[in-house]
This record gives sequence, C-alpha cells and structure tokens, in this order.
Amino acid sequence: MPVGLTGLPHLDPVPGIRLGTAMAGIRKKDRRDLVVIECTPGTQVAASFTRNRFCAAPVTVAREHLARTTPRALLINTGFANAGTGEPGLEDARACCAALARQLNCRDEEILPFSTGVIGERLPRERIVAGLPSCLASLNANGWVEAAHGIMTTDTLPKGSSRQVKIGAHTVTVTGIAKGAGMIRPDMATMLAFVATDVAVAPAALQACVAAAVKQSFNRITVDGDTSTNDACVLLATGAAGNPVIGQAEGKDYAALLGVVTEVFTELAQAIVRDAEGATKFITIEVKGGRSESDCLAVAYTIAHSPLVKTAFFASDPNWGRILAAIGRAPIAQLDVTRVAIHLNELCVVRHGAPDAGYSEAQGLAVMRLPEIRIGVDLGAGAASARVWTSDLSHEYVRINAEYRS
Amino acid sequence: MPVGLTGLPHLDPVPGIRLGTAMAGIRKKDRRDLVVIECTPGTQVAASFTRNRFCAAPVTVAREHLARTTPRALLINTGFANAGTGEPGLEDARACCAALARQLNCRDEEILPFSTGVIGERLPRERIVAGLPSCLASLNANGWVEAAHGIMTTDTLPKGSSRQVKIGAHTVTVTGIAKGAGMIRPDMATMLAFVATDVAVAPAALQACVAAAVKQSFNRITVDGDTSTNDACVLLATGAAGNPVIGQAEGKDYAALLGVVTEVFTELAQAIVRDAEGATKFITIEVKGGRSESDCLAVAYTIAHSPLVKTAFFASDPNWGRILAAIGRAPIAQLDVTRVAIHLNELCVVRHGAPDAGYSEAQGLAVMRLPEIRIGVDLGAGAASARVWTSDLSHEYVRINAEYRS
Repeated sequence: MPVGLTGLPHLDPVPGIRLGTAMAGIRKKDRRDLVVIECTPGTQVAASFTRNRFCAAPVTVAREHLARTTPRALLINTGFANAGTGEPGLEDARACCAALARQLNCRDEEILPFSTGVIGERLPRERIVAGLPSCLASLNANGWVEAAHGIMTTDTLPKGSSRQVKIGAHTVTVTGIAKGAGMIRPDMATMLAFVATDVAVAPAALQACVAAAVKQSFNRITVDGDTSTNDACVLLATGAAGNPVIGQAEGKDYAALLGVVTEVFTELAQAIVRDAEGATKFITIEVKGGRSESDCLAVAYTIAHSPLVKTAFFASDPNWGRILAAIGRAPIAQLDVTRVAIHLNELCVVRHGAPDAGYSEAQGLAVMRLPEIRIGVDLGAGAASARVWTSDLSHEYVRINAEYRS
Repeated sequence: MPVGLTGLPHLDPVPGIRLGTAMAGIRKKDRRDLVVIECTPGTQVAASFTRNRFCAAPVTVAREHLARTTPRALLINTGFANAGTGEPGLEDARACCAALARQLNCRDEEILPFSTGVIGERLPRERIVAGLPSCLASLNANGWVEAAHGIMTTDTLPKGSSRQVKIGAHTVTVTGIAKGAGMIRPDMATMLAFVATDVAVAPAALQACVAAAVKQSFNRITVDGDTSTNDACVLLATGAAGNPVIGQAEGKDYAALLGVVTEVFTELAQAIVRDAEGATKFITIEVKGGRSESDCLAVAYTIAHSPLVKTAFFASDPNWGRILAAIGRAPIAQLDVTRVAIHLNELCVVRHGAPDAGYSEAQGLAVMRLPEIRIGVDLGAGAASARVWTSDLSHEYVRINAEYRS
C-alpha cells in the first residue's frame, strides 16, 4: 500500500504536447499498455538513461535517434522490457519506430522508443503496430492522466507532478509522469519518467538542467538496489511559452527553470518510493558531517540497502543496532565511530558512537510506528551531506517479486 | 528450513582442547547460551575479525589480549552482541574475562571474549559470571556437540566439521564449530567460528593458514550483504599431535595443513548458508572469464545480493533477466555484454549476451526447482575466476528479521 500517495495531482497541459493511449493487449488483456507522446516540431529534448551495461534495445535505439535529430514522438509500451534480447530486440524496437513514423509522416529517427516489463522475452511488435491507430486517434493535450496509467506495471497508483513558474513575464508549465515500484536504484537516470515543459531553452542548457535535477531526485532513490535495464528520464521543451530563449546553464531564468524541474522530478521520484513494492514506510536518510558527498552517499545507500534495516522498519522495531552495523561496514576510507550520531526523526538514539543517555525504547517505538521516518546520521568528520529516499522490506515485496511472471 | 544440512557430522576431539557449556539465562531461559573452550598451555592461535568499524566490544578486547599473549580459554555468549555499547560495553567484556581468569587461575589477557546476539544493549555480566562454575564443571574433550548448540542464535541446526590428515608420520585432527544464519557477509572474517587442531605450527604459519583458508571459505558467503559487528574466526593449534613444528607457510606439510583447514572452514561456511534465515535454496555462483578476481567477485556479489534474483530463486522462477540485469550493473570497469554467457547448472541460458537458441522455459524451470543450483557466468574477458555461495530471499527471512527482538 503506497505511503502518503493517494492519486494524481492536477496535471496542467503543456502547450505543444499531446498524448494518446491504447489497450493493445501486449502482455495482458484490458490494460492500457501503449502510449504515444507527440511533440510539436522544434521541441528540444534532454534525456538520461540507465548505466546498466545490459541496457535494453529501446535504450540503444533511443540514444541513436537522439544523436541524429530532435523527436516528433515518444512510443512507450509496458509488458515487455525488450532487454537481453540481442539483435532481434533491436530490430523489434526499430520496426515499431518505423511503423509510428509512417503514420505520423516523419522519419524513423524522429521516434524515441521506451519499453518496461519482463526482461529477456521478445517484444510482440505486431500487437504494438496494431495498437497504434487507436493510440493516435486519442491524442490530446489533456491526455496526461491516461498516459500516467498507461505506463504502469507493478505500480499500484499512477504518478504525476505539475508546476508553473514565471520566467520573466512568461508563465511556464512543467508537467510529468513516471512509473516504477521495483528494480529501483537509478544510476544517472531513473525508471521511466516523461516530463514536458513549454519553456524556450537551448539544447545544452536543457541537458545541464536534466543532469542537475536528476542528480538530486531520481538518482537519490532506491527500493532494492537493483538498477533496471530500461531506466530513462526524458524532458521535452516545446518552446511554446514564448519566453526569451534560455541560452545557457546560468542566470536567473535558468535557476528558475532548474528549480521547478527539480521540484517536479523530486515529486515523481518520491512517488516511486512511496509506491515501492510492498512498502509500508517512506524513509528519508540524511547523512551529514561527511568528508565528501560520495562518503555520505555510500553510508546512506549502505543503510538503504540493508535487508536487516529494512525488515526492522517493516516491523516498526527500533533496532538501531542494525543502522549502526550498516554504517560500520559502509565502503568509505575513514570512520571515527566515536564521533557518529544517529537520529530517528528528532529523537537522538546514538551520540559519540554509543547509546544516547536520554534514549528509551518507548521513544524509539513511538517514532518507528510512524509511516514517514527520517534517519539522520552525523559522521562528525566534515561538512558534506547527502539525502536519499527508500522504503522498507515487507512480506509483500517478496510475494510480488516471487509471483511477478506467474 | 536448511538446504542439504541435516545435523552435525561426527566431531573428533582435539587433544589439548576441552569444552564446557551452561544455560545461564542470558537473554532467554532454558537455552544453552554460554560456552568456554579451554586450551592447553602453549596453544598457538590465529584469528580473523570483522572489518565492520562498529566492531563489538569483545572483538576489541580479544584483539588487545591476542596482541599480548596466547590464550588459555575462549569465553562465548549468545543473547547480546555487546556491540554499539561504548565504553561500558568494553568494561563488561573485561569484567567477564577477569571472572573466568580468576577461576582458571590465569591472567585476564589469557581469556578471549566473543559475543553474538542483539546489538546495542548492555551485556548482563552478572548472569554470565554466575554461569561460569557450571560451565567449567562440564569441561570435557568431547564437548564439541554441546558447544555447537551453545553458540546458536537464529540457527535452526548446529554446525560442525571435522577432518584428519597425515602430516608426516603424525595424524592431525582439525575440528570446528560455527554459528550464523543472518547478517552474513563476512569481510576478512566470518560469523563466529571456532576451530581447533592438535598440529604443531609456528604462529606466523598458522596466521597465514587462517588468512588463506578464510579467503576461500567464510569470505565467499553472503546471505543478506550485512557484515556483522561481531564476526570472528579462531583457529587454535595445541601442538599435541607431536609432528615436527611447521615453521613456515610453505612446503608439503604446510600445504597439507592448509588443505584440511580450508576443507573444514568451507564446510562450516557452507553450513551457514544452508541454514540461512528462511533459505529454501543453496546457490553457488561461479564467475569466470574475468579480467581480475576482484571483477569476478564484484559480479558474483552483485548477483548474490540482488533481492530480485533472490526472490526469483525462492519462487523457482527461471527469470534469468534478473541475473543479466545484475551483471549489467555490477561495479566493474569494463564489460562487453556480447561476450557474456549464463548457465543454470549445465543448462546454457544466455550466450553472447542474448538468449541461447536452445534454451526453453521448461528446461529452466526444471533446474530452478532443484534445492541446489549453480549460476555460472562467463564474462569472456580474461582468465580470472571466483566462487561465492548464497541463499534465496523468502517470506521466512522477512518474518524472522521483522520479529527478531519480539
């Protein structure tokens, strides 16, 4: 059951963007499983993809197409990830792009393909091609809600975020959707996230904006430490807002854009963790006092990936010894355990590496019973800090992932 | 339920070693929870301890004592780990050593303390001290079986191993016991393992033997990736066999000793994985064709720690895409995915980075239903290899670790 996530917020349309969906029966019947996001000519795009070396065929094809031109449409299917499928998988992805290009009267490389679902099985390309006409017939500027549903797999709720900001005299909209609940440890990218804005921005500034925003949002979440083969985050900028073009990654207008994009990315990233497979807790891990940001991240992720920490949170058991043990084994060069402090929300649990004199089990239990908990760690060694978000490990996570293909 | 582990093998006594146990009521009533292993004067010892920076108080004290002299006795308690307990924890450990030293009429530093159990709570030293007389009254050379029971926590079965080997004209015995089922990812050490031999060996050669044997046994297992604060592996050598002293870590006699010690360590290490919390599968991961052993280990541990791989094995689901995704995200410098092959036992699943033409789901399912499965990975890049052992992730693991303190 998702933690603090009840449904989609209002999603403002983005001038220049239309979305269409279809039930193409790709892997299961009666599921909205095919999405097309069409963008107006001249739309700029910046994207961030998985670093998993076994990246999926659509990731390879999307990268190739992005290197050649700007896109006219994104084609997204669920059911099959088209990863680990070798050369035939690349042909399937290219054939789907070609089919959509014919119907949109554009070139194949103006289509970017995305897939999510089971790894290692071929994409049923004929079902996707057959679903395209109804997908295109439904294209409209208010299609965000249906598209958010159309990209779901094990997600229990659709995920979306929308913001508006003034850039000079112009109101700019940023609206996005995302999917993901398991196999979540984005590495320089995310699960599937599609965000669009009508801002006018130069390609290099847009790419810088995506890189900076991803770093603080999608690259700061983990459910199970498993980096997907299909992660992708795409930001489309149609330019329809008519603001003076943001030409470089600096200045007031760029800062405003980065701020609002980071807000939307962060809301989507947190929504993925809140809807993590089997999650009963939403956990924020803040590590400060590190010698470097990478040290802080190493400690934060060691805690976040510890099955023992995660099961203790599931049980609402203030077994802070497991947090301490995770810190102690984190892969950092130096650690003075006598300087380490641990907080659960505002409650000090460990000070100078030993139980705090004022701590009581009853206080710990009161915090652990809350659905949203902050683990604060102070390494006492420097000025760096980092923050990641994660979930607990429950019976339901095991059930979902044991039964996933059945 | 343990996988392929039914109980203790025959454990030969080791001349020079006596073991005693007691039910001291340390954390629960009617449990054998206190063990003393007494060794004859002149016994050499080599030990390997956790690299977790939050190492437990007994680990710190045992290291101090080892630096000063050879031991007369080991004192082991379950119930509380005496880790994360700061200065009072060190005082507790020292007080327990002093109490045993008085009764054995030796110096405090001739006692090595070991603890396992809940982290972060004080050791009830008065209960341990009160249990010592009955522990000492039961000292006998055939106490290995009761000692194996006496060091168990969440273990469902006791773990032991025993071998004999000829060193020249002399028969040498190596007998050991171990405990551990969760928080298992030994790092240069292991869970608690106590092994004794009557071989005559010089201290440096004994230490080299432990380091080499640990590397291929206890340091090659993982259950949940969580390195314990209390890991320790101790090898006692009484010298009672009367063989010419093995003076250096080379030559035929040393090779024979290293071989038999590695066998005993490996049987104990595998027993820990077979009895892993909630385990239903015993999984061997063999990675070959790597550019270095560390690359092979990085790939093997990434697979072994993947919750998605582990839940697929629990479900007997041949979802090899999860293995492929884990390989793809392993932290190694270079990977040519078109050279990667994956086997499940003898069944080729992936060749040249794509599904093998001869593979069928039915064949995969037949292998996955077995209780013992080998994942073979060929990276196709070099001549290095490595092997690790792990278990699956089941509902039972979550239940055990959610309820551990209740």
